[in-house]
Amino acid sequence: MDYQSDQAVAILRRTPATLTALLRGLPEGWTKSTAGADTWSAYDVMGHLLHGEETDWIPRARIILEEGVAHPFDSFDRTAMFEKYQRYSLDQLLAAFEQARVQSLATLDEWRLTPEQLALKGTHPALGTVTLSQLLATWVVHDLNHIGQVVEVMAHQYADAVGPWRAYLAILTRPILTE
Amino acid sequence: MDYQSDQAVAILRRTPATLTALLRGLPEGWTKSTAGADTWSAYDVMGHLLHGEETDWIPRARIILEEGVAHPFDSFDRTAMFEKYQRYSLDQLLAAFEQARVQSLATLDEWRLTPEQLALKGTHPALGTVTLSQLLATWVVHDLNHIGQVVEVMAHQYADAVGPWRAYLAILTRPILTE
Repeated sequence: MDYQSDQAVAILRRTPATLTALLRGLPEGWTKSTAGADTWSAYDVMGHLLHGEETDWIPRARIILEEGVAHPFDSFDRTAMFEKYQRYSLDQLLAAFEQARVQSLATLDEWRLTPEQLALKGTHPALGTVTLSQLLATWVVHDLNHIGQVVEVMAHQYADAVGPWRAYLAILTRPILTE
Repeated sequence: MDYQSDQAVAILRRTPATLTALLRGLPEGWTKSTAGADTWSAYDVMGHLLHGEETDWIPRARIILEEGVAHPFDSFDRTAMFEKYQRYSLDQLLAAFEQARVQSLATLDEWRLTPEQLALKGTHPALGTVTLSQLLATWVVHDLNHIGQVVEVMAHQYADAVGPWRAYLAILTRPILTE
């Protein structure tokens, strides 16, 4: 599919409720466990999503709209959440993410982006020239990627408990999502 | 983690609400699209989950509890949903799945399974001897696997729209979940 704002927002506004339905109140055995070195727990992912909401998507879109290619985006610190939100509970992260997302989508809605604006270009520090529509499409896929990462790391907690069924459960046997 | 009924049920009872939060009311461009031959749409996955609820988990658990290894499970038809629910809308599948899951968990709760019962054995038609706790752990991971599959097939609809960011989105570049 081509990027289309209504369809993108349909996903973006569902992500907080989806993660809340999945995670709120779950025992910490599910939410605080990783699947080994360099993997993130569900709790870690929520911090990463909140940090992205505060520093990545709307701020980068604003740079494209206001300054274009002349102002490269700041690098996004993928692991900032480990310090930044270390005192947050999972419930606090879920609530803060929901709040931040509402705010982000209100800004996006106010902009009423035209096809011409969606084609505007910016400069990614590593990837080079990108467009606003690519940024917004990436926001959507990034949400879906991290929902996938959450269910995957939780599934791995039962990697042994499933016994011989492991052979049928691709989520346990392929390389895990790590970012 | 070892299988533990309370922790397993904590996931199992959240799955319908999670999928409803993610999928209800989404444009069909997201929910009815596959990612190529032999892949399932979100709609297809919901049919598969409903069929499993009706024919797989609780029925197999009952066979273990009542008949043990002497009665091999029926094979589970992974693609039965393509015919069985072809007249269902996505909203109908979501509602039927939620209803069926409530029923399944009520049955599980009534059983009040003891550690001795969780160690009881059954015969899987392909995998051989399995235990009741392995079956129930698999039910949990199967839910998580299919939530992962739903977000993955939806993410693939934007595989081109993200442009150069594709390189950073593992959900788009690794082999897709197909079952």
